[in-house]
Amino acid sequence: MIHTIEDIAFAEELFDRFYNVGSTGTGGVTRLGYSKEEDEMHEIFASIGEELGCKCYHDEVGNTFVSNTDEAEYTLIGSHLDSVIDGGRYDGVSGIITGLLILHWLKENNINLPLKVVAFRCEESSNFGRCTIGSGLITKEIYKHDVGDCVSKAGERLKDIFDSRGYSLQPQIIRGVKQYFELHIEQGKVLEEYGDQVGIVSTIAGPRRFNLHILGQAEHSGATPMDMRSDALCGAAEIILEIENIGREESLYSSVATVGVVQNLPNALNVIPGDVTLGVDMRGIDSESLERMETRMKNTAKKICARRGLTFYKEKINEIPPIGMTKELQERLCKAAKQLHISHRVMPSGAGHDAMSFANICDTAMLFIPCEKGISHNKKEFTTIESICDGARVLFECLKEDAQ
Amino acid sequence: MIHTIEDIAFAEELFDRFYNVGSTGTGGVTRLGYSKEEDEMHEIFASIGEELGCKCYHDEVGNTFVSNTDEAEYTLIGSHLDSVIDGGRYDGVSGIITGLLILHWLKENNINLPLKVVAFRCEESSNFGRCTIGSGLITKEIYKHDVGDCVSKAGERLKDIFDSRGYSLQPQIIRGVKQYFELHIEQGKVLEEYGDQVGIVSTIAGPRRFNLHILGQAEHSGATPMDMRSDALCGAAEIILEIENIGREESLYSSVATVGVVQNLPNALNVIPGDVTLGVDMRGIDSESLERMETRMKNTAKKICARRGLTFYKEKINEIPPIGMTKELQERLCKAAKQLHISHRVMPSGAGHDAMSFANICDTAMLFIPCEKGISHNKKEFTTIESICDGARVLFECLKEDAQ
Repeated sequence: MIHTIEDIAFAEELFDRFYNVGSTGTGGVTRLGYSKEEDEMHEIFASIGEELGCKCYHDEVGNTFVSNTDEAEYTLIGSHLDSVIDGGRYDGVSGIITGLLILHWLKENNINLPLKVVAFRCEESSNFGRCTIGSGLITKEIYKHDVGDCVSKAGERLKDIFDSRGYSLQPQIIRGVKQYFELHIEQGKVLEEYGDQVGIVSTIAGPRRFNLHILGQAEHSGATPMDMRSDALCGAAEIILEIENIGREESLYSSVATVGVVQNLPNALNVIPGDVTLGVDMRGIDSESLERMETRMKNTAKKICARRGLTFYKEKINEIPPIGMTKELQERLCKAAKQLHISHRVMPSGAGHDAMSFANICDTAMLFIPCEKGISHNKKEFTTIESICDGARVLFECLKEDAQ
Repeated sequence: MIHTIEDIAFAEELFDRFYNVGSTGTGGVTRLGYSKEEDEMHEIFASIGEELGCKCYHDEVGNTFVSNTDEAEYTLIGSHLDSVIDGGRYDGVSGIITGLLILHWLKENNINLPLKVVAFRCEESSNFGRCTIGSGLITKEIYKHDVGDCVSKAGERLKDIFDSRGYSLQPQIIRGVKQYFELHIEQGKVLEEYGDQVGIVSTIAGPRRFNLHILGQAEHSGATPMDMRSDALCGAAEIILEIENIGREESLYSSVATVGVVQNLPNALNVIPGDVTLGVDMRGIDSESLERMETRMKNTAKKICARRGLTFYKEKINEIPPIGMTKELQERLCKAAKQLHISHRVMPSGAGHDAMSFANICDTAMLFIPCEKGISHNKKEFTTIESICDGARVLFECLKEDAQ
């Protein structure tokens, strides 16, 4: 759809307000969770909220809320303001701009809808090795119980940071959220490839992560004939290709399988590799597909290693089940996009988001907008202000139904 | 063959004299080239030489000679006394013990054969990243011209070490060597697997080394469907298996091909690898086979990468041609082994040795003895005193023909 000059200008101004924070001077930004750069982002967010005539407050873990209501029940729109190291300016920020745009449009159109917009703390795992800390703590998301012991890139324990700021690692659970919405850049290139303006998330994929250990014999690469070798890297290469095959076959069910990490020992030109570890990331929205992928990976890797005289063992690092978004909200978002003639597709989210934290406590939905070439977590990350306005308009259209 | 108790005891005593130098306390030794540990090894070697009634001297680069002659022409038996970091006690030392045994036997049997035994400096590349420095410099081996700029593990330039010791990086070429012999542990397991007591080296394999660069697209492992990926690691895995195949097919010509090094970027669980470098080591004794392997690797890797939408380029790190040992000396060693009923095989050397330096200036031959499980450059390295005596006896039998 065509947006008004005023809307584009307003969204652009919001984007510009955040622009310089944590700039690395090479095109990217570093705004780590619970750092002073993230604090600065939250201050700017609160200032904008006040300018919009809203109330602003922080909760017990430092999340910042901008609210147009005193009512007990309200709609919550959220995302985050932290970034990875030397990351882009759209990841998280696009969702916050969307919330602010909608507060602005509600006011402009005199629509009475109790709404809060929240900027969560520390969504990225870049600072503490753990993601969605701010949203996870206030929704009592089970994986956050030990987060206090995590140590920042600068060497500080999260517990000590919380103590010095007067935050609590055991906050009250958030109350009154009728429904939660989040807009985010896709961080993939599905929308771009299909030419769709908006994605409506069906399910957030559950990752299963493994270390595969492959042990052979480290020997002199010049003095060991080909038929006397137990080359761990050749075994690992077969396993890498098998995992790719498994992912391809299960892509029917929107699953993916990736070997992202290789540790090769001793990693010397004149030694046959004797010890290889592969880090595997499997994601999917269908638990049966994930189960099949895990079983098949284990069985095939065992066979490959047995045939090659290698030792194999598998170590599961973690397993988070797929998290479905609320069906009714998906349908309402689709309807809104249709009404606005904004091209859209229902799609899974391969990446994790703050919305995962809310799916267990209230109706939850997510909207994606395209980002150029799918690039994210990178200073080259880019989306257009028009795309943010597309997504925000779909969400606004959907929310108007709830107006009182 | 059965050795006398006296011979075994004598060889064992020689071995024990070197035992404690550079002991790491965990079973291994560290005796880096041009370190004080290597100096100590050379002092012990010279002391033993003097006890055998020989003259001892150092040359312009610190190699130590033990000589029973003043004649202009002589036979030279050599090896080295340095080790890798936390290495074994047999690599190099076995060859030196062999030389000393032969000096002893010549004297014991009143055989007049002009002989020098030499301990070369810094055969291992562990300290300066360059191998066979001591033997290479005195034979004007072409690859040593820039060795002065190499820096030791402790951060010292070789040039400065040479200056402080009064050595020269431009020494006189060694003169008077009629023939050069070297005994070494095999550092592979061919002799052990075939149950042979001695190996007679036909050719020292020439290494060709490459870096293969494979470039794809680093993308989010959760958000990028399988059919939208340019996964550099999957391409690399295919190439690794192809290089293994190439090595297997060319093993008919005693060639080997190994991927020893993998650098995978960004090497993160949630990112599809976008940039992989493979370090490849090809060795062989047949230049045509090496040529075929290189060409086939390049063509296959190009095809694999083109099919996968990856960028490929090959960088040759070095190429040393195979170095043949003198045919006549091989035959004489075979004859001697037969006479002594010592089982033997003619075989290539996959590893490099000081003998490479001499092949261009005089008749040159090498003998291998088995080492347990082929393990070398490791504190678990082991061979028996009997094996050293087997090899020394074959060499002694061969040399008796040259007696005056």
